[in-house]
Order: sequence, then C-alpha cells, then structure tokens
Amino acid sequence: MSVQPDKLFGPRNSVEEVEEGTSLSPRFDANGLIPAVTTDYTSGELLMHGYMNAEAFALTISTGEAHYFSRSRQTIWHKGATSGLVQRVRECLIDDDQDCVWLRVDVTGGASCHVGYRSCFYRKMPVGVEQDGPVVLEFTESEKVFDPVEVYGDAPNPTQL
Amino acid sequence: MSVQPDKLFGPRNSVEEVEEGTSLSPRFDANGLIPAVTTDYTSGELLMHGYMNAEAFALTISTGEAHYFSRSRQTIWHKGATSGLVQRVRECLIDDDQDCVWLRVDVTGGASCHVGYRSCFYRKMPVGVEQDGPVVLEFTESEKVFDPVEVYGDAPNPTQL
Repeated sequence: MSVQPDKLFGPRNSVEEVEEGTSLSPRFDANGLIPAVTTDYTSGELLMHGYMNAEAFALTISTGEAHYFSRSRQTIWHKGATSGLVQRVRECLIDDDQDCVWLRVDVTGGASCHVGYRSCFYRKMPVGVEQDGPVVLEFTESEKVFDPVEVYGDAPNPTQL
Repeated sequence: MSVQPDKLFGPRNSVEEVEEGTSLSPRFDANGLIPAVTTDYTSGELLMHGYMNAEAFALTISTGEAHYFSRSRQTIWHKGATSGLVQRVRECLIDDDQDCVWLRVDVTGGASCHVGYRSCFYRKMPVGVEQDGPVVLEFTESEKVFDPVEVYGDAPNPTQL
C-alpha cells in the first residue's frame, strides 16, 4: 500500500493548537522518528517500545496494522511480516506535544518480543530500597511463547551492545 | 539523595547476557538518555513517555519515586516536585535489549500531564480507514483534572514546536 504522509499530517503552528487542537501534527526528531509505545488492548501490558518514521506512521493509520521503522535495519518494519505476530491496532493515541504515539493492539499469536516472550518487558528490578551494589533483575515471564530460532532462523539479532 | 549510578549498572558484555541475564545493564543513547514509559499501576493507562539519564534512573530506583531528565530544561526532574503529582513506582521493568524502562506507578492527585489531563494521551485518531486528507483527532478525556495555570503559574511551557 502506498501512503502520502504529507496529506495526513498538519503543520505545527502554535503550542495551543498542538496541545489542545484536533489536527494531527506529529513532531519527528532529528532522525525523522517518533517513539511508539505499544500495549496489549485487553491486558494493558506494555508489549514494546519502537520508533516510526512518517511513512510507518501513515501506514499504521491507513492499514490498522502496526508498522515501525527499524533503526538497526534502517527500513520500514511491518511487525509480524516475518514472525506472523501481527499487531492489529484497536486504538491509536497521541500525546500532548505530539511527539509520542500510543498503540493499543491485539497480537496474533500472543507474543511481541523477538526473544520469544509475550512482552519485551519480562524482567523487573527492586525499587525504593537502598542498593549498595549492582541491581539484580528478576524474570516476570517464566516461559517463552515461541522459539526465536524456529521463527527467525539465522536472521541477525537486532539487539546492539 | 545522592546516588552512584556506576555502582548500580553493569557492563554490556554480550547480547545473550543483556537479553537473558539478570544484570541491569541499561543502554543510554548518544545524549546519555533512555526512554521511560509510565503507566498507571491500577488502570494500565499510558500516562506519559519521558527520558531518564543515568542519575535520574538511579534516583528512581533508590527513592521509588519517578525521576526523569527534562530535555527542555536540561536538568533532573523529580516528577511532582512542582505540581505535587508525585509518581510512586510500584514496579520497574526493563526491555529485552535494555534500552527502555517501564514504570508502573500510582499518581498522587491522579494526573500526570502538564496540560491538566489525567494522561498525556488524551486524543485518539481513526485507524484502518482510508484517509484522503488531514487526520482529525478526537478527545478521550473531557475534563481536566487540574488547572495548569494554578499549578505551574507562569513557568515556561515545555512543549516545543
């Protein structure tokens, strides 16, 4: 599907209009990206945090399926195109200054994380207690939903050190 | 409170350790920042999307109250220090490649947005329908929780065009 982001997005004329108006006028950063926060529509769980460029954002709006911009591969990334774990967007919101997008989605297959877990956020840390050494993480998911080797084969791991 | 981030955060030695290990080894970007996604612990609602530097992250862990780094003011930002709308962190998670933090919080006073709404994400857009012109936003919150002029006075608005 071809999209024309210029037709969908309005100009950013004033703070009042951006914050209190009804025109979608997103702010992309110096790299042309806007962060996207993706939560499960039913459970509210945070599934992932990604980025969209203007084209990915326009594709998400037009198709109703989450599209991101892969920073490691520098390309549009239709989530689920490889894994089948498509994210169907039930609701799409934008924040006060329009520099962040919230996608509330249903996920085919129930997983969103390339490591194989349901959510990318599968480890938590202690808070509000004095730490006098390295913070130790605790896993919140005990089993993977899928085997990443079966799904992605030998595709390069997107995690960068 | 003084904190020593170097003592809390481990090195990023391998992809496997970062993704599957129990050491907190966050990745800060070229500006020394990591994005933080903040949701309401009870409702699951996305309240805001901010950034933390190493010190703000360490302060959040140590105090159990959300601290961010204000990009517009270039300073540590103890959320609620001005408005009283402190965010008490009930759970803090990190993602697979450890370049994003998820804060699940209780908010004193029930609002997190400088415009006065409960959430910064108070407008939604249509998705999955053909758009042949500018996208029109619809408000999802009808009333402000507080009057920003009363709370912030004439402090400069953080929204940038």
